[in-house]
Parts: sequence; structure tokens; C-alpha cells
Amino acid sequence: MKAVFLQQGQVQVKQVRPPKCPSGWAVIQPTLLGICNTDLELQRGYYGFSGIPGHEFVGTVVECADSTWIGKRVVGEINISCQDCDWCRGDLGRHCPKRRVLGIVRQSGAFQERFVLPVRNLWRVPASVSDEAAVFTEPLAAACQILEQVRLRSTDRVAVLGDGKLGLLIARVLYQEAQRFQKKPRKKPCPTCPEVVHLGRHRAKLQLSKEQGISTRILPETLPKSLLAAFDLVVDATGSSSGLSLAISMTKPRGTVVMKSTVHASVAISTAAAIVNEIQMLGSRCGRFGPALKLLREQTVDPLGLIEAIYPLSEASAAFAHAAKKGSRKILMRVG
Amino acid sequence: MKAVFLQQGQVQVKQVRPPKCPSGWAVIQPTLLGICNTDLELQRGYYGFSGIPGHEFVGTVVECADSTWIGKRVVGEINISCQDCDWCRGDLGRHCPKRRVLGIVRQSGAFQERFVLPVRNLWRVPASVSDEAAVFTEPLAAACQILEQVRLRSTDRVAVLGDGKLGLLIARVLYQEAQRFQKKPRKKPCPTCPEVVHLGRHRAKLQLSKEQGISTRILPETLPKSLLAAFDLVVDATGSSSGLSLAISMTKPRGTVVMKSTVHASVAISTAAAIVNEIQMLGSRCGRFGPALKLLREQTVDPLGLIEAIYPLSEASAAFAHAAKKGSRKILMRVG
Repeated sequence: MKAVFLQQGQVQVKQVRPPKCPSGWAVIQPTLLGICNTDLELQRGYYGFSGIPGHEFVGTVVECADSTWIGKRVVGEINISCQDCDWCRGDLGRHCPKRRVLGIVRQSGAFQERFVLPVRNLWRVPASVSDEAAVFTEPLAAACQILEQVRLRSTDRVAVLGDGKLGLLIARVLYQEAQRFQKKPRKKPCPTCPEVVHLGRHRAKLQLSKEQGISTRILPETLPKSLLAAFDLVVDATGSSSGLSLAISMTKPRGTVVMKSTVHASVAISTAAAIVNEIQMLGSRCGRFGPALKLLREQTVDPLGLIEAIYPLSEASAAFAHAAKKGSRKILMRVG
Repeated sequence: MKAVFLQQGQVQVKQVRPPKCPSGWAVIQPTLLGICNTDLELQRGYYGFSGIPGHEFVGTVVECADSTWIGKRVVGEINISCQDCDWCRGDLGRHCPKRRVLGIVRQSGAFQERFVLPVRNLWRVPASVSDEAAVFTEPLAAACQILEQVRLRSTDRVAVLGDGKLGLLIARVLYQEAQRFQKKPRKKPCPTCPEVVHLGRHRAKLQLSKEQGISTRILPETLPKSLLAAFDLVVDATGSSSGLSLAISMTKPRGTVVMKSTVHASVAISTAAAIVNEIQMLGSRCGRFGPALKLLREQTVDPLGLIEAIYPLSEASAAFAHAAKKGSRKILMRVG
């Protein structure tokens, strides 16, 4: 069977033996796979990675000791935790110090015709959710994680910085959450809802947010006074090393910056600004799949507009090259 | 009367006219004055400051329209807020965007024989609190501010980084708070209390914490594995641009870093570490005086051991030079 390998910057499709199914695990045959920025970073050699990447997938269980799973359409949480430490006992296996991570840390990824995951990581995909939507569960869960860490208030002004794939999902998630404060349905703009503004540098991408009803704004090179210390909550999803400083400067005193941009370089910030204004900065990573699947099932967040192209797995090299193009939206790969 | 001026790095004592008393304000004759690192930074030209500094004081009201204040021994909050904005109405005048700050921003400071402050900023000093203790109210309030932002839990491991003046006060405040979890008085080490460790580079200063019963540890150049991701709460009071990175690396996943080091340079951090471990970083600045005065009145925190020398106001230049010496403790100036 085919598998995608990353090695020294190269993307190659090779023939490998199908994986064996450990006890308590399942063999999954993926249908659709998503290429994430992390995959591009693995390609560039971060984490000293070499092997089979891939952690965004929707697929079908083809082998499992528990036969009730066979044939079921699934997505899966990517952290494989030890189940035996304080973190795991506290339902925070995502922080288990011994964890392996699908396609990232010591665990072969989903970019192959069959791969394995523990059964406890799997989530059934509701029948109403298409494969094209379900493949967004993992990044959508990362967006939803913000709401596990921060509670919106009706008077909040919220800014999402960055119009990349994650920024687009975050803007939708926060906008939907803000609409829950609506007292009279369909009154736009809602006077009792938190205000959500999506800021980025690409007009075409912001248009995707605009079509969802979200206020958008091109991020100017120099911040006008109206954007300084103007937001209660700012999410940095710029993916840029300058994003965090920008976010701090846009946050009101006592406000919150959510850090969603993993940048593989040291990032320079003015701590004086953060201290004088007593700003809270929150690191935010993966999220639980439940809330994301709920949004997909209820169709309150529709990610389909984010898809730019779908390649066959055998053309993984071209798919990676396309995903690495500046300004590209989500690139998927289809198996079989 | 005499006043201390900072101008182009120089500390000079000049003769000035006594201040007039605006309506709602009081004229204060200080008894003891504390030199803070911020004063040294003002001397170096930060904030483009030039004028009369000073914001740590204890003194006596000598002029006030409300005669009940006359002769009273007072300390005073340093932020002079507009009283008319949302921040001020929300009892957060410390973040009022129009605020002036005693001896720092657009308001002549306390380093003179008489100065003015609004009556609403004043706090009576309890009779049981000496001038030498009361002059620490402002920095002690800054240490207490951490407890307004963070709640200790009995299982917490807490690290205070930095053995400068603020670090020493913070270690005492957090240690005292930790002792409140004690079930059987005087059992040491307390098995039901959060563990507080004070880490610094100066054995003599850490000794001051040790004498209070606080665990101390010399901060090694390279962190041993036992200090990595080992603390639920880490306070960076190093005053150094490397302190925040150090604090992040010592914090457990989902833990909190309190930022107390205003460094006037951009600070480089690994946001990836903060994001992967979902660390919360909290900027923390001035605090309310009430909790600090309570600690001084109850003598649960005794700051007297922190005093290194007391100079007369007329020798302000020598006092500033002494305060700027590496490793020096608190330098005070006496008036009259």
C-alpha cells in the first residue's frame, strides 16, 4: 500500500506493508486527508521529523478487535496519551508528557492507505456530516479550544488576526459563539452580541468571512489609533512572528490575547506593554473533538468554502507544493 | 524647600517653591522615601522623563481643605485617574487612559520636602506600623496584586524567580498566602500548603527569604530537568530580559506565569513552548494598598530586613548611586 514520506524536505510516495492492529487500537482506511501548516513545518525539518506525517483525516475502520467499529466512518483525536499519569487521569491527555502524536511525534501519521489509532481516540462522524466537512474536525477543534479557555461577554470586542486556514475557522467559531447572545433573531448587526472583527492581509480570504456575516478589515501596515488597545479579546492566528506584538498592542488593559501562532523562532514582544496593561496571554493548542463535531452537525460552521483543491494521495508532492503556496486555502488529499 | 531632580542621567537637589494645594488634594510632607528600580530607569531616561521622581513614601498631611486629614500619617496610591471613564467607574483607575502617575507620568513626585496627591489616593497608616515598614506599602501592594489575579491551590508548586527587592517581597507574600492552607499550626514543612520556592542568583539575598522560612535555591545557569515544567505558578521578578523564557520553561502545562519584570527592551520568548503547553502569562503591575497595609499591620510580612541604607534627601545623588549598585537592597531617603 501507498504511504507519504517526508525526509530532508522531500515528499515521496512509497510502498509499505499495511500496519498491524495492536490490542485496543483500530486500523483506519482514510477517505480524505487535510494538509496542515504543521505538516509543512515537518517537511521543513521542525521537530527533527522524518517519516509518515498526517493528522487531519476522515476515514473508515477496517480492522478492530471490537467488531462494532468495523465499517464505521470516523475522525480521531491525535494525542495518544499514556492513560496512567495525572494529566491523563484529569482528562488532559493532550498534555500527557509521554504522549505520542499522530503524524507528528513518534507515531506514523494518516497520510497512507491504512494507519492505526487507539479506539479511545475515535469519534463517529454523524451521517449528516460530509467527508469534506468532517476532515476539518481537527483544526475546527483547535479553534473551539479558545472557548474552553475564554468566556465571551456581551460587551466584548473581539479581533481575530490572520486570514489563514486556522484564522478563518477561528473567526467563524467566535462569530457563531457571539451570535448566541442574540435576543431578537436575525437582527443584524446584533446590538446585544459581542462584536467580532476578522483582520487579515488578503482581501479574497477575508471575503470568505464576510460571506458568513463577519465584519472584516484589511490589517494596515501601521495600526491606526482606533485599533490600539481597542479589543477585549485578540486571537493571534497570523502565523507570523510579529503577530503577538500586534495582538498585545490591540488589546485593552486587562484584556486577553490568545496565542494560536506556533512560530518556530523566538518571538520578540514588549513585555512592558503587557505588564502595564496587565494583559493575559493564553497559549492555546488542540481541542476536544466533541464541540467541533457539534458545530459541523448543526451546520453552524460550514468549512467547505475553505477547500482549495483535492489531490489523489499518489500526488502528495504536488499537494504539499500547492499547500505551501502563499495565500492558498485548504489542500486535501483523497485516498482510493 | 528641597526637591530632587532627574535630568539627562543626573540627580540634583535644587530649591523649589512649595506646591499649592488643589481642591480635593492634600499637601504631604514625606518622612521616608523609597528608591525603586523605576526611579533608576527614569534616571536613565525611560519614558523621556525629566523632573521630580518618587512614588514610594510615607509622610504627614500638612495642608488639606478637609481638616480631619491634617497631621495624619499617610501613604498614597500613585495613579491619579480621571474619575470619569469606564475604567475609573469600574474601580480600575490604575488603568485609566488619562491617568497621571506620581513621580512617573505628568505628576511631580514625592522626592521633595512637600508634594501633592488627591485625598482619594491617601491611606491612613495604622499606629502599629512604623515609618520604615509603611514606606514599603507601594511595592508590597504590587506583590499582593498577584493574589488578586491568581488563586493558589493547596497542591500548587510555586516558584518566584529573582531575588531583587520586588522578588523578596513577592516570595514573602506568596509564602504567607501558602501558609493559610496550614491545618496544624507550626508543622514545617506544611504538608497541606502550596510549596513556595524562591530562586535567585545571590546567596546573601536568598538568605533573607530563608530566614522567613521560605525554601530557596540558587538558580543554576542551565536548568536541571527537575526544574523543567515543574511549577504550577512561576513569577518572573528577575528584572532581566531572559527571565520570561526561563519562567515559561519552568511552568507545567496549563500553568501560569506572572510577569513582574518590566524590561525596557523587546523580550524574546519561545511562543511555541507557551502554546504547546497552553501556558497562561499574566501581566501584573500596581496593586491596591488595602491588602498591603493589612499584611504590615498584622506583621505577617516584615519588610525591615530589606533596608540597606537610609540617606538624607540632600544626599539623593549618593542614594541613587547606591541603589543602582548591583545586588543592593532597598535604599531609603529621610526628609527633615
